[in-house]
Amino acid sequence: MLRHLVRQNDSRIILLVMDGLGDIRGPGFPQTALEAARTPRLDELARNSACGRILPISMGITPGSGPAHFALFGYDPLAPQNDVGRGVVEVTGVGFDCEPGDVAIRGNFATMDSGGYLTDRRAGRIPHQEGIRICEKLGRNIKEIDGVEIIIMPVREYRFGVVLRGKGLSPQVEETDPQLTGKKTLPPTALAPEAERTAAIIEEFIRQVNRILADEDKANTILLRGVSQRPTIESFSDRYGLKGAAVAAYPLYRGVARLCGMELIDTGFSVREQFQTAKSVYDKGYDFIFIHIKKTDSYGEDGNIEGKIEVIEEVDSHLPLLLDLRPEVLMVTGDHSTPCIMKSHSWHPVPFLIQARDCGSDATDAFNETACDKGSLGVFPAVSIMPLALANAGKLKKHGA
Amino acid sequence: MLRHLVRQNDSRIILLVMDGLGDIRGPGFPQTALEAARTPRLDELARNSACGRILPISMGITPGSGPAHFALFGYDPLAPQNDVGRGVVEVTGVGFDCEPGDVAIRGNFATMDSGGYLTDRRAGRIPHQEGIRICEKLGRNIKEIDGVEIIIMPVREYRFGVVLRGKGLSPQVEETDPQLTGKKTLPPTALAPEAERTAAIIEEFIRQVNRILADEDKANTILLRGVSQRPTIESFSDRYGLKGAAVAAYPLYRGVARLCGMELIDTGFSVREQFQTAKSVYDKGYDFIFIHIKKTDSYGEDGNIEGKIEVIEEVDSHLPLLLDLRPEVLMVTGDHSTPCIMKSHSWHPVPFLIQARDCGSDATDAFNETACDKGSLGVFPAVSIMPLALANAGKLKKHGA
Repeated sequence: MLRHLVRQNDSRIILLVMDGLGDIRGPGFPQTALEAARTPRLDELARNSACGRILPISMGITPGSGPAHFALFGYDPLAPQNDVGRGVVEVTGVGFDCEPGDVAIRGNFATMDSGGYLTDRRAGRIPHQEGIRICEKLGRNIKEIDGVEIIIMPVREYRFGVVLRGKGLSPQVEETDPQLTGKKTLPPTALAPEAERTAAIIEEFIRQVNRILADEDKANTILLRGVSQRPTIESFSDRYGLKGAAVAAYPLYRGVARLCGMELIDTGFSVREQFQTAKSVYDKGYDFIFIHIKKTDSYGEDGNIEGKIEVIEEVDSHLPLLLDLRPEVLMVTGDHSTPCIMKSHSWHPVPFLIQARDCGSDATDAFNETACDKGSLGVFPAVSIMPLALANAGKLKKHGA
Repeated sequence: MLRHLVRQNDSRIILLVMDGLGDIRGPGFPQTALEAARTPRLDELARNSACGRILPISMGITPGSGPAHFALFGYDPLAPQNDVGRGVVEVTGVGFDCEPGDVAIRGNFATMDSGGYLTDRRAGRIPHQEGIRICEKLGRNIKEIDGVEIIIMPVREYRFGVVLRGKGLSPQVEETDPQLTGKKTLPPTALAPEAERTAAIIEEFIRQVNRILADEDKANTILLRGVSQRPTIESFSDRYGLKGAAVAAYPLYRGVARLCGMELIDTGFSVREQFQTAKSVYDKGYDFIFIHIKKTDSYGEDGNIEGKIEVIEEVDSHLPLLLDLRPEVLMVTGDHSTPCIMKSHSWHPVPFLIQARDCGSDATDAFNETACDKGSLGVFPAVSIMPLALANAGKLKKHGA
């Protein structure tokens, strides 16, 4: 229905996502990270916004980062076509556009002993530059197997991506990562008859890699996971008439954004650098800018509430960089909760605010979980924030007479 | 989707349902029953819980007890297979497991005069022992009609159940209760050609019953309703991996719980007896214990707010029996609202709380309608409480990577 209502104008929308932002109180945690953090700018913003809490998927369901971001972008996180394999997400995240028929795989460089038993599933976490060097070495030596083009690309540190491009490929191939050291890698078994040739190509690829990397100290073998093909996903511009930009530093978030048709903007990792990146592209013709802050989630996963508070306060302190752009619509939220007390993703609803000329304001007097419970938007599904943003941007016509 | 996420662990879930708990304020009712009741234990619990209000079905829809309980158990109350006929519910509720093909009917013993006109649709509300005696008398005399086995069972007082077991039966038969005294019972008319034999068998059954009961003072005829067959309902264990127990005294609630695959536990009627029953089976290997308190609804239907308050305070006073078990998850709610001012079921959202290690707490400072409106869960469909309970019990995996 939405598509028929979309109209275009010059309004710009910024979506600021602090990963794993939501939190809960519990023993030893009398306040959530947002409640404890000093956030005068976010609080002031909340007082002039429509606030509420978003459910990433539905009540009780804990999402992974992929489905959670699809939901934020307005795509049904439970629809099969939005259940994208990690191979595709990772290579897309480093800027590689898979074509239909390509098979994408995410890989780890790893270390095995002379008997072929894994001693380190991450090759001693080799630095990013080492990963680039090894990918180049492989790329020079492996270009094609059985008529299928092989494209190898670094992702981050010990992680890389590989794409098979050719006719008749299938993603129905088992992962080779045994998940434990002291084991040998698993064979890339075909899960369906039509995948037997693909499995054979992957097996030959691994054989060649092991030969080429035999002289490496740490990265002397590989583990392959997430064998997958790119699904058909309606683009952001077809769906919403929006030209989108993604200011995100980590491959997964870049990957999901790119799959939805956003352009990937190179950015540094710090909050300040990311906000400055957003500022630098603000006048470059984008209608929608997605900014992804990762560290709130990382600290949540560590149970480090001080760290989470610090990132939130850092976001607050640099917020004027975004506010000074005066975007017609600004949304601030998380993709899911990562309560410090749980040290993991969770199902709890996430604080949300939307600021715009016609957003209205409500009883929310600060930006945190409890304050947002007083908001005018209630608890609602994350997939609804895009229609809400379009409406606030004046980009939606009336439905019916 | 839920099924793929379910994992098993030792956590136990208690669902305490006060029937018709929700209420509203109105002229002559400055407070709801929950607001007026002294409930220090429930209030303390609410302060440490995630709270909200549940919609039994959807906004504005007043549910019967059957659909309301299916929703609480996480089954779509609007799905045709969950629209179970009252005959099946009643006989299931007294412990009879219908087989596929069985036709179950709920019956009232009634009184008619010598001309066949009804003088009492409930046979003077004969006591339970009388009901049992008459069922036995019928059972001795009627075993089979036209090759179909006839099984008669007492339910409560003047109510009984009858099951037809045989080949080619159909539930498409009209009820015989004219709903008014001074009328004759209606014939059991077939509503479809394939039901004509079943209707004829029921007609013959009624004829035999009237002959056998001719010498009875009060229960000298019957009224038949809810002719129905058992639908295919996924069991609690298949759906959630839970072994469920139902501590409920009334047949309807026992019936719905049993249809969802829970085991029925014998219990007394008082709150204290029911809580003690729950306690007595707590270590018997159940993952889920449903406790059903009836009287809140009965007093609501009578418009007796003092009575409703008294039951709520009784629940509060005996609550330590449950709290001392330290269940990993405790939910307290109602199946629907029965406002005293309306003397009937209603559509109003029902106070809800869930207490667990990782539930989080919110601004709700007491357990009542207005306080729960400040909760972190908002107003949400009752079918969502099961996923929420499973999440809080650590029984759900993450969705997606």
